[in-house]
Amino acid sequence: MTRTSDEVTEFDRHTAVTSLGDGRYRTEVDPGWDVIGGAPNGGYLMAILVRALLEETGAPDPISVTGHFPARTPAGEAEVTTEVVHAGKRLTIARAVLVSDERPRVLLTGVFGDLDEVHGPSGGEAQEPALPPREECVSIPDGMDAPPITDRFDLGIDPSCIGWALGQPSGEAYAGAWLRFADGREPDTLSLVTYADAMFPAVLNAVPEPSWVPTLEMTVHVRDRPSPGWLKTVFTTRHLDDGRLEEDGEIWDSEGRLVALSRQYALVRG
Amino acid sequence: MTRTSDEVTEFDRHTAVTSLGDGRYRTEVDPGWDVIGGAPNGGYLMAILVRALLEETGAPDPISVTGHFPARTPAGEAEVTTEVVHAGKRLTIARAVLVSDERPRVLLTGVFGDLDEVHGPSGGEAQEPALPPREECVSIPDGMDAPPITDRFDLGIDPSCIGWALGQPSGEAYAGAWLRFADGREPDTLSLVTYADAMFPAVLNAVPEPSWVPTLEMTVHVRDRPSPGWLKTVFTTRHLDDGRLEEDGEIWDSEGRLVALSRQYALVRG
Repeated sequence: MTRTSDEVTEFDRHTAVTSLGDGRYRTEVDPGWDVIGGAPNGGYLMAILVRALLEETGAPDPISVTGHFPARTPAGEAEVTTEVVHAGKRLTIARAVLVSDERPRVLLTGVFGDLDEVHGPSGGEAQEPALPPREECVSIPDGMDAPPITDRFDLGIDPSCIGWALGQPSGEAYAGAWLRFADGREPDTLSLVTYADAMFPAVLNAVPEPSWVPTLEMTVHVRDRPSPGWLKTVFTTRHLDDGRLEEDGEIWDSEGRLVALSRQYALVRG
Repeated sequence: MTRTSDEVTEFDRHTAVTSLGDGRYRTEVDPGWDVIGGAPNGGYLMAILVRALLEETGAPDPISVTGHFPARTPAGEAEVTTEVVHAGKRLTIARAVLVSDERPRVLLTGVFGDLDEVHGPSGGEAQEPALPPREECVSIPDGMDAPPITDRFDLGIDPSCIGWALGQPSGEAYAGAWLRFADGREPDTLSLVTYADAMFPAVLNAVPEPSWVPTLEMTVHVRDRPSPGWLKTVFTTRHLDDGRLEEDGEIWDSEGRLVALSRQYALVRG
């Protein structure tokens, strides 16, 4: 689907914030990003707080953002309170809380600035992760009870990681997919925060039964501005110990550049 | 060095906090943990805030903690203000700010609780990382101008990663060492936060000249309570792009269990 630049896309409409003054913003949490009924995706919620902080700080890019989730966030009206802790020459540290029904639902602390002003040496050994070509990847498998958030994306899921949804987990805690917004909205540094949480938990391929995997903490490091086009996203869990796990994500853009790293601490019940 | 249990160790003395009521704590930042003159180690500072939050929440363990560093923290008196955001049945989300000279210096947000109450399946493919035997490892190389923090630890550094300090970086962004406190204080979940930042930046082996590597954000995931004895710590940077890097750490205890994962977003200048 193509889109002209003056249309407001789903992602932008559903993460919109309106200033109330004094660092406070009104927003409307949309149920279209639920991962199960009544539970919006954490990366979607974080993007709302990041948008408020970008507006409050005037910075173009979230550089590092960390979210915590004190309570489930209901759909509907909410307020984001922002606080600029330190406005440096190049980087600003700020935090925000999303409150609804007088209860804190999401906390976010981050570093904001202009990625064009950060420069230094390059190096490292890491290769772009391999994914099957998009035409060999799949969208939501038939018969899967897919949550609302899956409608927000065009999905090209690596067929090797969909076994869990069919009762046949692969045994490897891995989830990989080509992703882009279903309405053609191009990726930017703000939306990377949502992309970093858009896939099912990789650990579902390493436990016998599908399980709820609550996130204790999620951090996204934005490493570069993404080019237009599909994003390649790869998530893995290396250590699952007594129900505690990390999920590490990499997002690469259509030009083969690493644009974000993510890590979550999550739990899974036996 | 052996120690009887009623001695107060360096780490405990230097991270001590005294309640002032209303969630406020007084502390004294010790210069003995400086990484260069006047700049205390971030993991040491984070432990002060974590200690205040453990006292405030009554939880035995930090489970996930994230630090940000708005300004350099001078040695001397400081105040930590804590805020319990959500006290759940098992886990508490809380945050703290360390202020000195009326300026915020360190922010910390975390999840606190009792690791003994978190259970679930185990799995994963990750192996304990290899380090040379302790007797083949080295302490601070002769001729190196070592910062004060190195006196706080017994160090058994992997010889393959000390080249940068002798003007011969290995080319591999890796730092690995056996670590324990010099005064024999055994590791616990609080001190893992400091251990996770105790080594030199791994990237120093991948850039031509030693450089200041400021941390934008640091998160420590405490995965298990460490057994007494030496800790095995391994830090790597896989992606160094235009001066932006992640540093990933693993800490394993003397019984071969993963006890913490850490990640920093840091910068290095050209």
